[in-house]
Amino acid sequence: MAAEIVNPRSDSTAGTAGADGIGADEPFDPAFALHRGGKMAVQATVPIRDKDDLSLAYTPGVAKVCSAIAEKPELVHDYTWKSQVVAVVTDGTAVLGLGDIGPEASLPVMEGKAILFKQFGGVDAVPIALATTDADEIVETVVRLAPSFGGVNLEDISAPRCFEIERKLQERLDIPVFHDDQHGTAVVTLAALRNAAKLSGRTLGDLRGVISGAGAAGVAIAKFLLEAGIGDIAVADRKGIVSRDRDDLTDVKRELAGLTNRAGVSGPLEKALAGADVFIGVSGGTVPEAAVASMAPGAFVFAMANPDPEVHPDVAHKYASVVATGRSDYPNQINNVLAFPGIFAGALQVRASRITEGMKIAAAKALADVVGDELAADYVIPSPFDERVAPAVTAAVAAAARAEGVARR
Amino acid sequence: MAAEIVNPRSDSTAGTAGADGIGADEPFDPAFALHRGGKMAVQATVPIRDKDDLSLAYTPGVAKVCSAIAEKPELVHDYTWKSQVVAVVTDGTAVLGLGDIGPEASLPVMEGKAILFKQFGGVDAVPIALATTDADEIVETVVRLAPSFGGVNLEDISAPRCFEIERKLQERLDIPVFHDDQHGTAVVTLAALRNAAKLSGRTLGDLRGVISGAGAAGVAIAKFLLEAGIGDIAVADRKGIVSRDRDDLTDVKRELAGLTNRAGVSGPLEKALAGADVFIGVSGGTVPEAAVASMAPGAFVFAMANPDPEVHPDVAHKYASVVATGRSDYPNQINNVLAFPGIFAGALQVRASRITEGMKIAAAKALADVVGDELAADYVIPSPFDERVAPAVTAAVAAAARAEGVARR
Repeated sequence: MAAEIVNPRSDSTAGTAGADGIGADEPFDPAFALHRGGKMAVQATVPIRDKDDLSLAYTPGVAKVCSAIAEKPELVHDYTWKSQVVAVVTDGTAVLGLGDIGPEASLPVMEGKAILFKQFGGVDAVPIALATTDADEIVETVVRLAPSFGGVNLEDISAPRCFEIERKLQERLDIPVFHDDQHGTAVVTLAALRNAAKLSGRTLGDLRGVISGAGAAGVAIAKFLLEAGIGDIAVADRKGIVSRDRDDLTDVKRELAGLTNRAGVSGPLEKALAGADVFIGVSGGTVPEAAVASMAPGAFVFAMANPDPEVHPDVAHKYASVVATGRSDYPNQINNVLAFPGIFAGALQVRASRITEGMKIAAAKALADVVGDELAADYVIPSPFDERVAPAVTAAVAAAARAEGVARR
Repeated sequence: MAAEIVNPRSDSTAGTAGADGIGADEPFDPAFALHRGGKMAVQATVPIRDKDDLSLAYTPGVAKVCSAIAEKPELVHDYTWKSQVVAVVTDGTAVLGLGDIGPEASLPVMEGKAILFKQFGGVDAVPIALATTDADEIVETVVRLAPSFGGVNLEDISAPRCFEIERKLQERLDIPVFHDDQHGTAVVTLAALRNAAKLSGRTLGDLRGVISGAGAAGVAIAKFLLEAGIGDIAVADRKGIVSRDRDDLTDVKRELAGLTNRAGVSGPLEKALAGADVFIGVSGGTVPEAAVASMAPGAFVFAMANPDPEVHPDVAHKYASVVATGRSDYPNQINNVLAFPGIFAGALQVRASRITEGMKIAAAKALADVVGDELAADYVIPSPFDERVAPAVTAAVAAAARAEGVARR
């Protein structure tokens, strides 16, 4: 996990900002200073010291490697960085809480994601922010890029296009396609929920949950928790609980209405929360204290909106037995970085053709198990800086890929 | 130019090739050993040691950087790696002398190119091998990728599509688009030719040249030498000299027929060579010794086909005053790596919107001038490992971009 860090640019470019006027007017801020010149670089992993090196790494030596791949295509995985590198693809439409800010403005996030891949999973990653928001164009573009990459991490693409884009891409490509805002969040949520249930002596099947937010994360968490065996789960959007009697649902939400909310509750979020065992917030809204108070005794509150959780942790602790947030300054941070580096590292290690439900469940289980005997109400999920996390997730995902028959080595 | 080299993969993956059978059957060869696991990696240039680092490099700290770019788009150059990174784009249709081997098989060359960018120019570069050979689809795809990159290096795309693709991309993008097989070769050829002329007390205007090969390199060299002021130049393809009386010409060659061959020679290559001052071979064919013997006294023979020059250097030396090849084991190697790293480094340094003819001529002049007082028949072009080359080309290109009004800082 430790890697040598050099930023040759921060010195050389820092002085020029004021000189030409570009960037001179931003307020002084450590974030701007850190991001100046970008946060990543490419490095050669082979030496080019003299003409012998050059003729081996480039022409004429490279020709026989190219010919070998042309003859036996799977050798591309052995003799290029393809199986080590993930494209981090966005269209800039749902960036953090900022919304549709466009591809250029999304790049600092994509670079950040890329370096998290490297630091936490040892996976190389390249930011690709696209100048189109058309779902079919995004699909076509990524299909054309795919020969160069071992996997595709979709990022910050707004719902409902993100569902269609991911599905179509995975149908057409033989490399993993993974929308982290959906599945990364779902994996970490399941890990925390498993441990919270364990702590209270219950199983997932005993629990009835409520999700606030029916965007990418909300939909994916709902489906994944059902896959993992949760007793019941209801999802609420801004108009209330997603239920079969609503006539204002998108295709995705209509499917969700068919899968979730077995109790058949209609109306506002608060109605579903009465007596519920789990609250999962991925909406950015606020849940009234009375609704939290109406939950079942010993409830779990995972209020993941950032920077303002749907339920303030101080309020949540008055009623809940386990409280988690998306913030790093409270215990139990639900942070995607716990999942995606190891998930891709494991998938790439065995050259998986896709990331299956079983691989994601294995990732969640491995992540939960890192906590081990130290399990406590304020420790249901490991820290992102726990060095056991990525190796555990990687190994579990690789093993699951083999078990599910999607591994190619 | 010196950079630390680590290849964490060569050890960890070397042992697995035989184990699973993939790659087990290639012959032992140092080129295969070197290329195993690829030749490049991504690295973070900022530290992520703890949650404070994480909250600055990623959420929530990154949000304000994104917002600043959304508000003032040109800040993307200051706060991401955009202005440091070039996409090396191919469709795999004209790879080395191997031809149309497809995107995957072209990747070892694209990675090689990417690390040459880094080693020689300090420019980050990402290999993008596309799963389409349709010119319009390539253009659309690269336009959509462009927000993430500071420049586009087109590579190993076959003629005549390469001309159309480059032109359409440069029309639509405000970042440099540069087909290195064309312009890189042309720049280095001009540099060598300037010095050869200087050595023999002649100017470019005194010279009549003949190019064998009317592909990407041949067409670009012809146009560029005319731009630089060569007296006359004729181009021959497999069917003979490109001349106005031919009725089998593509659009590109018809344009070429109008620009070149002012002497109006028709017929085979040999006919143009009689009395010519310069031979430039970018064809891979063979020129009979008698044709070389028919050139003007003190001629220059640049036989650049690799690994078999159109005229063997031993034969060329019998008739020519200056001999250059594409090979590293003879003097005067015409090698693109002398040009493209510095050209892009200079263009990116000043955020040029394109690479103009003036910038390329400045690059050729700077490259020729590195030779200085040591100019001799066996030293008309510097070595790729001459550390003065990239800084000289970079500075000249940046200055020319400013002079031509395409610089944005």
